[in-house]
Amino acid sequence: MSAGVGVALLGAGAVGAQVARTLADDADALERAAGRPIRLAGALVRDSAKPRPGLPAGLPVTDDPSVLLEAEGVDVVIEVMGGEQPALAYIEAALRSGRHVVTANKKVMARRGPELLALAAANNAALAFEASVGGGIPIIGPLVRDLAANRIAAVNAVINGTTNYVLTRIARDGASYEEALAEAQRNGYAESDPSEDVDGEDAAYKLAILSALAFRGAVREPDVFREGIRNLDAADFRYARELGYAIKLLAASRLENGAVRARVHPAFLPERHPLAKVDGVYNAVELEGGLVGWAMFQGPGAGPGATASAVIGDLLAIARAAPSGGALAYPEVGARVPILPMADLETKYYLRLRAADRPGVMAQITGALGAMGVSLASVIQKEAPEDAGGPAEVVIVTHRARERDVQEAARQLEALSVVCGPPKLIRIEDGSGVSPA
Amino acid sequence: MSAGVGVALLGAGAVGAQVARTLADDADALERAAGRPIRLAGALVRDSAKPRPGLPAGLPVTDDPSVLLEAEGVDVVIEVMGGEQPALAYIEAALRSGRHVVTANKKVMARRGPELLALAAANNAALAFEASVGGGIPIIGPLVRDLAANRIAAVNAVINGTTNYVLTRIARDGASYEEALAEAQRNGYAESDPSEDVDGEDAAYKLAILSALAFRGAVREPDVFREGIRNLDAADFRYARELGYAIKLLAASRLENGAVRARVHPAFLPERHPLAKVDGVYNAVELEGGLVGWAMFQGPGAGPGATASAVIGDLLAIARAAPSGGALAYPEVGARVPILPMADLETKYYLRLRAADRPGVMAQITGALGAMGVSLASVIQKEAPEDAGGPAEVVIVTHRARERDVQEAARQLEALSVVCGPPKLIRIEDGSGVSPA
Repeated sequence: MSAGVGVALLGAGAVGAQVARTLADDADALERAAGRPIRLAGALVRDSAKPRPGLPAGLPVTDDPSVLLEAEGVDVVIEVMGGEQPALAYIEAALRSGRHVVTANKKVMARRGPELLALAAANNAALAFEASVGGGIPIIGPLVRDLAANRIAAVNAVINGTTNYVLTRIARDGASYEEALAEAQRNGYAESDPSEDVDGEDAAYKLAILSALAFRGAVREPDVFREGIRNLDAADFRYARELGYAIKLLAASRLENGAVRARVHPAFLPERHPLAKVDGVYNAVELEGGLVGWAMFQGPGAGPGATASAVIGDLLAIARAAPSGGALAYPEVGARVPILPMADLETKYYLRLRAADRPGVMAQITGALGAMGVSLASVIQKEAPEDAGGPAEVVIVTHRARERDVQEAARQLEALSVVCGPPKLIRIEDGSGVSPA
Repeated sequence: MSAGVGVALLGAGAVGAQVARTLADDADALERAAGRPIRLAGALVRDSAKPRPGLPAGLPVTDDPSVLLEAEGVDVVIEVMGGEQPALAYIEAALRSGRHVVTANKKVMARRGPELLALAAANNAALAFEASVGGGIPIIGPLVRDLAANRIAAVNAVINGTTNYVLTRIARDGASYEEALAEAQRNGYAESDPSEDVDGEDAAYKLAILSALAFRGAVREPDVFREGIRNLDAADFRYARELGYAIKLLAASRLENGAVRARVHPAFLPERHPLAKVDGVYNAVELEGGLVGWAMFQGPGAGPGATASAVIGDLLAIARAAPSGGALAYPEVGARVPILPMADLETKYYLRLRAADRPGVMAQITGALGAMGVSLASVIQKEAPEDAGGPAEVVIVTHRARERDVQEAARQLEALSVVCGPPKLIRIEDGSGVSPA
């Protein structure tokens, strides 16, 4: 690396523009923090003819990646384009040429992280990706550095700001899912096609990245069980509150006898659970570690400023560690760890169904559950107020049971002639016992 | 540094023993994390004849510091003795000889941190002290590395586990201060002489360290305004709850036009304030940063495991960064920053006093406050139930006012013949506006 640090920026959307402006506006402070001047060589954009008032005046822009990727004097490539391709190809090219890479790309890291880390190591380059998880919240740094002495047992997180905004609006203000989502879209918290967020994909990317680092094995996005929030409705939030729970899109992974179970799905969390109190677009990650016990990290999960904070933090660390980059080495994540099937999960469950309101029906329902070895902690039966005589709503909370047994019981319940439609099933997370909940 | 990392341990109390055991028990995992083997050369103890069943079998112990401080092959000195001397002298000696130092010593770092960091830099040695603040919570690492791109505007923390345990017991269970403190002592959460904790000294040490790093200036312990929790009583907690607040020992510092105000005192925090929900022996630190906006770090503030997590995390970072140690460089904290006087603080206040229950008294009280320019947001007046006819209790919440005016008003109130004894004054912290509260 030269006396200064030459940087190429791939992507000049909201995040890229924020990074470029901060590098320009705070140049003196960043030079002190980096120990050497940082020089932004240029930005890769899709259309170089388009005016970019958000970029610092005079910053060269190009739509030809080779101009930046092969330029002399570019030591670090910052990738903030998003999406799998061509970002992945550019990252690979940069690492192969021995350039350090800072990326905010969760999709690339969740799918190809282990290979990219190996490629970086083989080329004596650093690959830093703090911004890929939890926006501006320092979580990857603490996990791989500050907590490196811990055997991490579990990661639990609320790690998608869009869904957390939507769920918070429904829970606090009684908005419908559709209203809350539309509002999130109006406020810029949700995409016009929100499926990556509401179906849990985004959270699964981030959980795969955290799990690989926490458990030091190659956990990838397809290893994460995934269920989104589209099926939740206002009644679930009412019952949750009645029972003392909040509903969150939980991202949870745990190491059990050398194997990992990783899952993203809506969950009932006890009101005192630390993640139950994380509202709006905020994210939080809690870790269980052998020495530290429990630690939690909270902050804005997205946004140009937060993401730029993480990206530039990584850039500064690379600049300080240069030329070796050694201090940025991440734990070995080469070896694939066994993934545990969701069917073996043991937890409590919330079941909601509609059933005929007549004698003997409850016996059939509890009988079907009992036959699968699922025992009940509580049962609430309510007449639908507006159509007395019609089906009653039955809400069941189980004791700890096995996922496959509960799913099978739900199928059998649906087959009962007295039950109307498929039962709704939501997993209940009790708290790990190590958190202050 | 040799192919392996030679380590000397100063102190073999609960923390030192935990560090030694973890280095022995997890040697393989730690070698992978460090990139080289870690070899514990020995431990300095006060009485080398005393049996130490908590230490790994075969670990050499000595009561002669020079044996360890001058030994060949010792690259890193871990100081977990606590107290200012002789710890400070040993740290200085180690740094002067070019050895890296990891310390958990908040008193030394709060009083002599800037000089020690300069000494370390002059000798090309690393000085790491994650364990000095917030036990096992990664906070110094995130502050100086992951968030290095941010101009930090404020640090707010609940950072003393002993007082937080005591305050939580009073608030939740109605215990008296004396009962809660005695219980904390029985459970090992408070010393037999609790003054360093309950008088806010411990929190002031930690706040000085965080402030120096956050604001990149030499903030030291005597710069921190300090007021402890001894004067709180059950009535304050009752009124706090009635008014929608929790009472916490707040450690807060803020950069205002290039100057710093740092203070530790009991504070009313709105129930929705993130720090209001941090209970028991847990600690939390929230930061306001230019890019990230707001981030919070939570976890166990003390304990052998948590402290060992931070100490060994620092050791691993030094081992990975060796031989340069460069990646551990902390921000420049050499220049002293101006310290703002407490008298100029502007916030809201809670005032509780006892006054004669007769016509005209309230006019005198509000008149004294009004004369100092202190305006009232609410007034609660209650007869003491058991002695009707005696003095009534008056609880006042002010609008934002200046500390010096409120203190002067309190003196004038005390001088009124209708007021019995000095008014109780507790500052109210509104929330910064950037946190999710």
